[in-house]
Amino acid sequence: MSVTAAPRSLGQAMAEVAGLVDEAFDAALRVPDDPRADLYRAMRHAAIGGGKRLRPLLLVATADLFDVPRDRSVRAATALEAIHVYSLIHDDLPAMDDDDLRRGKPTVHKAFDEATAILAGDCLHALAFELLAEDETHPDTHVRAELILDLARASGPGGMAGGQAMDLKAEGSRFDLGTVTRLQQMKTGALITAAVEAGAILGRIPPEQRTPLRGYAHDLGLAFQIADDLLDAEGDEAVAGKKLRKDGEQGKETFLTLLGVERARAQCGMLVAQAIEHLRPYGERADLLIALAHFVEERDR
Amino acid sequence: MSVTAAPRSLGQAMAEVAGLVDEAFDAALRVPDDPRADLYRAMRHAAIGGGKRLRPLLLVATADLFDVPRDRSVRAATALEAIHVYSLIHDDLPAMDDDDLRRGKPTVHKAFDEATAILAGDCLHALAFELLAEDETHPDTHVRAELILDLARASGPGGMAGGQAMDLKAEGSRFDLGTVTRLQQMKTGALITAAVEAGAILGRIPPEQRTPLRGYAHDLGLAFQIADDLLDAEGDEAVAGKKLRKDGEQGKETFLTLLGVERARAQCGMLVAQAIEHLRPYGERADLLIALAHFVEERDR
Repeated sequence: MSVTAAPRSLGQAMAEVAGLVDEAFDAALRVPDDPRADLYRAMRHAAIGGGKRLRPLLLVATADLFDVPRDRSVRAATALEAIHVYSLIHDDLPAMDDDDLRRGKPTVHKAFDEATAILAGDCLHALAFELLAEDETHPDTHVRAELILDLARASGPGGMAGGQAMDLKAEGSRFDLGTVTRLQQMKTGALITAAVEAGAILGRIPPEQRTPLRGYAHDLGLAFQIADDLLDAEGDEAVAGKKLRKDGEQGKETFLTLLGVERARAQCGMLVAQAIEHLRPYGERADLLIALAHFVEERDR
Repeated sequence: MSVTAAPRSLGQAMAEVAGLVDEAFDAALRVPDDPRADLYRAMRHAAIGGGKRLRPLLLVATADLFDVPRDRSVRAATALEAIHVYSLIHDDLPAMDDDDLRRGKPTVHKAFDEATAILAGDCLHALAFELLAEDETHPDTHVRAELILDLARASGPGGMAGGQAMDLKAEGSRFDLGTVTRLQQMKTGALITAAVEAGAILGRIPPEQRTPLRGYAHDLGLAFQIADDLLDAEGDEAVAGKKLRKDGEQGKETFLTLLGVERARAQCGMLVAQAIEHLRPYGERADLLIALAHFVEERDR
């Protein structure tokens, strides 16, 4: 999947970006010959060889629209994925969602221990900002500073981590549709938007010209979450590689409990169509982002 | 303590910087009227109104050497302290050091719960990079990118968090003096060095002219840790505001177990004298940094 090639299959693009992100993590996380070896092994366990790499692909595919060199977009994508992976490690902890399985493997606190899992998450969190701050991400420090500011805001209390905090309060709280939408826009949507935004920042697209891409990311993020709720209710744990049916057990309001299966599925389809509509200005160049939106609706893991 | 005033007492300077850092945290952490309120309360509990603010003072006092406007150095100092506070929250968790008391108050997981403590730490971690990436920290993005890169490296697996991971392996491992020194240079020294380095970065001092300051920070960091070990063995818990005598209980090798009390105390004094010697090029302008070094040796909390 080079910048100028004709559109290829989503599967190929996913595999390619996943491979590049794996390589970047592998290079950044060489296991040292000292008492930190387990810490690095834990980071590698969580970061390498798993997941759909949806956020990295979103970032790279958006950056491709603007002919951003692939080595830059992959670095930024690896940083973004490092944030996503740290959040998975911490969310899986016994004090949080208490999950034993993630991406078909034992969670980090199961494969290692809780202390190592907490620190591995913290280290991936720091690694994200280290990667973005380095020269190799972009020669212009304006670009790096904007990438960092956007990712810090998307991942902090006003974004991903704030959404997770709201989610912890969701059990038995009878949130309404507006609150659930806001929670999910923070918990999941913020990083999805940050992925697309980072692609535009690397492409030096000024903020006022990012409206179509932001519209795409916003609708895609919500569609992704509704699809996730449907998957939680109807998916196959063996395919998903993680425990399902948790929302029901925890008595949380979700898009599914609030809308019902049929309306939720219709809403997801409508959001995906709307997301794709936003990409019209980019024509065929956006084929990969369009394919990604369809994937979000149809995925089984 | 203005940039040009005659040296005043360390106590005054500490109180002033502590007040400014408290104000900055207060402004950054307004409690929202939504389900994230506890998350923000937990961050405020940990971040506001406690601690010696040694790292912020080091940063501000170093920046003062180069006439850096106080609003910039205080922002960078607040970011650095946010990293320190997040690490305290996570280190205090039951899976880590399992502490109930910190800065004379219940630890965050005691005052709130473990999930909130994990997330509050994560959010302060993100806040640190958000603060540094914002325009107000410095108008030049080169300066901001360098501050961010340095703090990410100092706090990640090659610095603070890596040192904490080594510390978890220290129980019963019979580390030698070299390994303990390396562990402590990462766990505590890295952020102390980052504080001084940030002051120099804000002052636009090129790396090759930072040697005296780095020497000061290096020696001060080790002296600080030896003093901490002495405090752990001989201090008063009521004054320290945290649980002491932990190293002995956990059977860890420390500077104290390896050197004995008398040699440790002598080593601490020697390091402080050496740290001060590094500051000679700065003459009287370094009086505050000198006073800070004496404080490190003599502190009881």
